[in-house]
Amino acid sequence: MKERLIGACIFAQSGGPTAVINASAYGVIKTALDADEITNIYGAANGILGVLNDKLYDMSKEDPKELELLLQTPSSELGSCRYKIADPDVDDTDYQRILEIFEKYNVRYFFYNGGNDSMDTCNKVSRFMAKVGYACRVIGVPKTIDNDLFGTDHCPGFGSAAKYIATSVAEVYKDAHVYNTGMVTIFEIMGRNAGWLTASAALAGIIGCGPDLIYLPETEFDMDKFLNEVSDIYRENGNVIVAVSEGIRYADGQFVSEAKTSATDGFGHAQLGGLAAILTNAVKERLGVKVRGIELSLLQRCASHSASKTDVDEAFFAGKTAVESALDGQTGKMVAFKREYDDGKYICRAELIPLTEVANFEKKIPLEWINEEQNGVCSEFIDYALPLIQGEVERVTENGLPRFARLKKIVAK
Amino acid sequence: MKERLIGACIFAQSGGPTAVINASAYGVIKTALDADEITNIYGAANGILGVLNDKLYDMSKEDPKELELLLQTPSSELGSCRYKIADPDVDDTDYQRILEIFEKYNVRYFFYNGGNDSMDTCNKVSRFMAKVGYACRVIGVPKTIDNDLFGTDHCPGFGSAAKYIATSVAEVYKDAHVYNTGMVTIFEIMGRNAGWLTASAALAGIIGCGPDLIYLPETEFDMDKFLNEVSDIYRENGNVIVAVSEGIRYADGQFVSEAKTSATDGFGHAQLGGLAAILTNAVKERLGVKVRGIELSLLQRCASHSASKTDVDEAFFAGKTAVESALDGQTGKMVAFKREYDDGKYICRAELIPLTEVANFEKKIPLEWINEEQNGVCSEFIDYALPLIQGEVERVTENGLPRFARLKKIVAK
Repeated sequence: MKERLIGACIFAQSGGPTAVINASAYGVIKTALDADEITNIYGAANGILGVLNDKLYDMSKEDPKELELLLQTPSSELGSCRYKIADPDVDDTDYQRILEIFEKYNVRYFFYNGGNDSMDTCNKVSRFMAKVGYACRVIGVPKTIDNDLFGTDHCPGFGSAAKYIATSVAEVYKDAHVYNTGMVTIFEIMGRNAGWLTASAALAGIIGCGPDLIYLPETEFDMDKFLNEVSDIYRENGNVIVAVSEGIRYADGQFVSEAKTSATDGFGHAQLGGLAAILTNAVKERLGVKVRGIELSLLQRCASHSASKTDVDEAFFAGKTAVESALDGQTGKMVAFKREYDDGKYICRAELIPLTEVANFEKKIPLEWINEEQNGVCSEFIDYALPLIQGEVERVTENGLPRFARLKKIVAK
Repeated sequence: MKERLIGACIFAQSGGPTAVINASAYGVIKTALDADEITNIYGAANGILGVLNDKLYDMSKEDPKELELLLQTPSSELGSCRYKIADPDVDDTDYQRILEIFEKYNVRYFFYNGGNDSMDTCNKVSRFMAKVGYACRVIGVPKTIDNDLFGTDHCPGFGSAAKYIATSVAEVYKDAHVYNTGMVTIFEIMGRNAGWLTASAALAGIIGCGPDLIYLPETEFDMDKFLNEVSDIYRENGNVIVAVSEGIRYADGQFVSEAKTSATDGFGHAQLGGLAAILTNAVKERLGVKVRGIELSLLQRCASHSASKTDVDEAFFAGKTAVESALDGQTGKMVAFKREYDDGKYICRAELIPLTEVANFEKKIPLEWINEEQNGVCSEFIDYALPLIQGEVERVTENGLPRFARLKKIVAK
């Protein structure tokens, strides 16, 4: 039987933003506003730092209509941080301070929205509160465009980034094929250790506008093999579209983006451009053809204007489930997604997994989803990712531009 | 009184693609299909090259539903070219060939869709046909994201690119402000000689997410002034968003992207990255802060997924007007837009201007629309550009991705 726990809640956002992280915020805030047990709802400014610095926004003071606009507002509306909290067994200063703030505001619910590192923070806070016997329910809400969180079928944020990437690759594919002169286009896509985002470029293949070659960090990169493969396709049809992950590495473990090769700058000077520029130059040198590098950069993680409705709905659902689970007595868990199919139709269910199982693990693309030549993905990946990019969001606009939420952010006393 | 001229028409696309150039194609094709005087409608493969190579697609063989999807298909569906046609007074080989093809298919209407260079081609074809006494009506349809065509209030293609740029800058603005640590973000935007696209970043300011600094090719660039301005704003609020045109030049006329400065590579090696990388590096060296360069590259000219409805409608209107004008007896003209206001409401009217007045001129931003510090634009620019980005397109999607037109492209015999 669940025990009713009455008190305030704190919600915080952490790590890199996504197009839908604020949809999870809205899921938490709206559900908490409706819960009798929750007396106050505080949004921490800049993640855990907002707690440490006693800078908490009173969410009940916000206009409900503005809160709803969080569903279409990119980035982390409450601010984020990349603060690495200490191990409580080594140094518990931060935790004592968090406890002090929790006591000050009678905080009994703590929801932390983030990726791997954030789940680690969440886990440490949870364990500390349990150790000192402070009654508080701590639930992690997953988020990351990288889709590398362990224990969940996928992460809120990934679907929208994947949709943006596939759409952009398809549009550029069309653009790159208008001339009767040859061209090579190289997309640099985010993902330091996991290739989920880069692989998503393959979704554009469904409408005949996909990349010819895809290189992921899950496999070793070989510059000669790459140049030969680009060269072969170029010779065959005069046009090559390549998608590479920013995290591709040589066999010796060195990032291609950081390596000094003769194809880049033999003098060993620090390169100005990133990976796209290095590969562009290498192809230009070898093939002597027109090459263009396109780095999707921050655009891929904040393009709420092309968000996946499935992703927005699921992000909200993750936030809502976090609050409902905490009210139900759960703590020390992260909301995770489980995929089911009903008559072939994709369904997303929520479940809870212990934070200790999630923290600091990285989920990569299974090697059997990557083709034998290690320059593309198999149909298993398409089947996995396609349901996540479905649906268009009906957006509120103003002056032809997206209408973002405008919060008052009144600091609690 | 107009004279009825009966025969086939050729439509061709030229120069760089836009998000809405195919909407103009649809305007031409649909209107021509409905016209009694027009016996056949041919789409030239790769602009004027399709005529020279006798590669013409029979548009009447296409499924009307697929043709309608041209309204949301980016790039030049018929293919484009950058072929510079000779001066007919110097070498009329190409023109004799064009005449041969026109006679072969009894072509009496020629519609050429493009920017400055394309209007030059259009003008030369028109003058040649008049000179040899071949009855043919030639009308240019304007297009260019650069918005630098002379004689028209604005160009189809610009509004959608401006909307994409403003939306992307706003989204990245949100993203770049989530951390409590400082950051400088530099957007590199297209526009070699005219700053219309770069200035469009300022539209994001309407929703409070605009760039702090804007540098246009219409004014001289000074690296020290730039670094001081970035530094001042950074010191004040810890975050700077900059929009620069790819075409900014030093006082001596040298492109910043091509100049060798000590801030880039003192050894004079060719730089791998483009302008964004050069400026990013210069700011990093001077300020020692986190800097990110974002090059919008091809994305800004093919993002039909975020097209402006106003732009799509006007692009269609330009194509339709071209055919109607030709049927009405006009020739040697380009369709131009004239802006009117009815009770403050923006209205776009079409008019015709002689091709000779358009060809090879470039329209730049009036200097009085640029602020005194030459690092931003005045309200005149906002008033000018804002109506052009209005309205969202209701798009057909398939599998969560845009549904592009799939033409059969049956070559005429």
